[in-house]
Amino acid sequence: MADKPAIPKGTRDFLPGEMARREYIFKTIKQSFALYGFLPVETPAMENLSTLLGKYGEEGDKLLFRILNSGDFLQKVSESVDIKESRSLAGAISEKGLRYDLTVPFARYVVQHRNDLVFPFRRYQIQPVWRADRPQRGRYREFYQCDADVIGSDSLINEVELIQIINDVFKNLGLEVLIKLNNRKILQGIASYIGYPDKLLDITVAIDKIEKIGIDKVNEELLQRGLKQDALERLRPVLTLKGNNASKIKRLKELLSEFEKGLEGLNEIDFVLRKTAMLDSSVRIDLDLTLARGLDYYTGSIIEVKSLDTEMGSICGGGRYDNLTGVFGLEGVSGVGISFGAERIYDIMEKCKLFPDNAMEATKILFVNFGENETDTCLKHIHFLRKKGIQCEIYPDLAKIKKQMQYADKKHIPFVALVGKEEIEKDVITLKNMKTGGQQQVAINDIPALISPNNS
Amino acid sequence: MADKPAIPKGTRDFLPGEMARREYIFKTIKQSFALYGFLPVETPAMENLSTLLGKYGEEGDKLLFRILNSGDFLQKVSESVDIKESRSLAGAISEKGLRYDLTVPFARYVVQHRNDLVFPFRRYQIQPVWRADRPQRGRYREFYQCDADVIGSDSLINEVELIQIINDVFKNLGLEVLIKLNNRKILQGIASYIGYPDKLLDITVAIDKIEKIGIDKVNEELLQRGLKQDALERLRPVLTLKGNNASKIKRLKELLSEFEKGLEGLNEIDFVLRKTAMLDSSVRIDLDLTLARGLDYYTGSIIEVKSLDTEMGSICGGGRYDNLTGVFGLEGVSGVGISFGAERIYDIMEKCKLFPDNAMEATKILFVNFGENETDTCLKHIHFLRKKGIQCEIYPDLAKIKKQMQYADKKHIPFVALVGKEEIEKDVITLKNMKTGGQQQVAINDIPALISPNNS
Repeated sequence: MADKPAIPKGTRDFLPGEMARREYIFKTIKQSFALYGFLPVETPAMENLSTLLGKYGEEGDKLLFRILNSGDFLQKVSESVDIKESRSLAGAISEKGLRYDLTVPFARYVVQHRNDLVFPFRRYQIQPVWRADRPQRGRYREFYQCDADVIGSDSLINEVELIQIINDVFKNLGLEVLIKLNNRKILQGIASYIGYPDKLLDITVAIDKIEKIGIDKVNEELLQRGLKQDALERLRPVLTLKGNNASKIKRLKELLSEFEKGLEGLNEIDFVLRKTAMLDSSVRIDLDLTLARGLDYYTGSIIEVKSLDTEMGSICGGGRYDNLTGVFGLEGVSGVGISFGAERIYDIMEKCKLFPDNAMEATKILFVNFGENETDTCLKHIHFLRKKGIQCEIYPDLAKIKKQMQYADKKHIPFVALVGKEEIEKDVITLKNMKTGGQQQVAINDIPALISPNNS
Repeated sequence: MADKPAIPKGTRDFLPGEMARREYIFKTIKQSFALYGFLPVETPAMENLSTLLGKYGEEGDKLLFRILNSGDFLQKVSESVDIKESRSLAGAISEKGLRYDLTVPFARYVVQHRNDLVFPFRRYQIQPVWRADRPQRGRYREFYQCDADVIGSDSLINEVELIQIINDVFKNLGLEVLIKLNNRKILQGIASYIGYPDKLLDITVAIDKIEKIGIDKVNEELLQRGLKQDALERLRPVLTLKGNNASKIKRLKELLSEFEKGLEGLNEIDFVLRKTAMLDSSVRIDLDLTLARGLDYYTGSIIEVKSLDTEMGSICGGGRYDNLTGVFGLEGVSGVGISFGAERIYDIMEKCKLFPDNAMEATKILFVNFGENETDTCLKHIHFLRKKGIQCEIYPDLAKIKKQMQYADKKHIPFVALVGKEEIEKDVITLKNMKTGGQQQVAINDIPALISPNNS
């Protein structure tokens, strides 16, 4: 009996129309990456579990897809392993896992190939990642990440350039965005300023919720986390800072004047904002102290991008991490990077109808099949047109004209070419415009000009 | 202690230079696929094992990479399973596997999405596949396949077009190839002609070895496989057929005149060869009766491509299969397809130095970093040039000039731009050609013309 075909939950097939639109996004991102001197790399889908485990927290470890060892894998399991316990058995019978993100494999890559790379190394990488997360709307078990990182440079010019890339990509895609910028060092300065330099994480987790629950609830939470009332009093004016970026920075520099780390962060963010504005004053970029994303590994700048067209959370993010490769034995290499969320960008563009009509690079002309004699002529015409770079095809089977026309219609092919006895005698082609319904007899040589985008 | 970073055996990282050359191959193949009206699709890396198992023979089943079920996977194992036996345990704790090729997932795809597809459906698919094969030179556990198939059409025009694609792709890549053509029906006819219609597989396996071991050894083998001497006498003139395609077909039509299936195959191959020659008489294509590739699923045409530049086995292959989707419940859908072996094509092109120098779309101009003041001007220049589509970058850190020049050199950046105090005052850029060593002062507006490919 035949299987009923299906794919694993949380994974997707892509139909040609979806492919074209996805490719449009990837191409736009790639073009900007390349324009800024970033070079592509790829890593294998599978990594050794020793590379992946422990890098994403306990929860992340659980979400790794593990590959079962090949062959008689139980034979190699030591007797000390409890094979009746899933966790210990899993550790004994799987050595590889599917990559969970592009960052950890890239850190491994930099360390492994450090002698073959030119530093500062600017790489981009667009590949799928896999997570055994519970699938839900907009969350998949296989999805693409589009990352660009600069490794081996402390310069804030990298931040400026990455922000320009973000701006270029979304401008080219036609999406209105707000870029939010923060710096971990400022958060550190604030924590010191209110007297709790060790409670950075507690404070940022709480700050992060201000928009949702309001400052009073946040204060309640901070009290529970052990902060005293006077600290909250000091924190309040920081959190309720108003004004443009420059005035915020000015006020913060006053407040944090005694805290070197905080001032360092403020100078950094000031530099990035000034250079960004110098190059393009239309970039919408906000200093946002509540931005705490990835605080566990970012050490400097923190970047997040929100769509202004729709409520969709973050569609791009990144930041600076000072020691990404340390875990693989290469210390002191600073990096800064961004990652575009292609799936969310896709959903927004679809919702806002931002995909161009011609995203699909598909057939421009369908030649109708009237039988072998006529087909010979059609094949020659098609051969000629393809040499001119024109995508065309012949309906391969001798089917009813109506069926062939329906095929053209369903595939959104803009022109149909009819070459029957009469056309062969006169050495012309009857070209039918499927949109207008109009048709005309033309010479093969005239077709390239006739089907240019302006006429289709 | 830090892990020593490594990747699973049989898998590869790709450095930017390799990426550019691989991308060049994929792009060339994609362009031809698109030109012939094929549309891209993608399927997930993971498929249900029920989709994959039993489709590649017993050996293939063993080579599937299986994904361990998530969570407490042992809890769901029924008591009847022998958890101390690898095979039965594997079946109980893994439901998904990595795709082994693109053909079976595509068959599953066609059945699953048949109501959303327009038939005849021309799709292409370029994605990695995974096999737990023993890694060796040129054989990887993760590698790309580049497939194009037409589903839902019996017409031999599809074969003609696929052969044109093959010819176009290799011409565009600069590879000399010989396309070998056979037809399973002819082999069937020959088996009937010598009196052993049921021994088709034995006969073709033996025939396949003629080149390697000679006709006498092949005859020995056929005797062992149960053929009688008089059958071998009848077979000999078939196997030693000389001459061009037309004369071979003529002679075979005489020999197989009483065997309808064989004549059908001969007519098919005759059609394909005639139309191919009609469109481009320079295509090197040979009828080759020893071509038996994939006989277990091909039902008509069989295609294989050999490089004439080097001994490397097949670099592209394909054929017609009449019932690919039957196993997933959709009967009677004929398909024909080809698959390019990107890894082997890469190796040949590398060996024969066929990659263009400019395969890498990399930075054209590096701006030297002289400090913040000069950098501001550089950033504005770069901003201007990128708007013109020119890939450029600034060395982000304030390093010694020598180090910055070495960076440009190692990255094969053809031009270096120097913008110091003098240049800023005069509003010019000193542009140094890294190949010739020559340098000149130019206005920013003149740069796009100066760095065009002809000057680099």
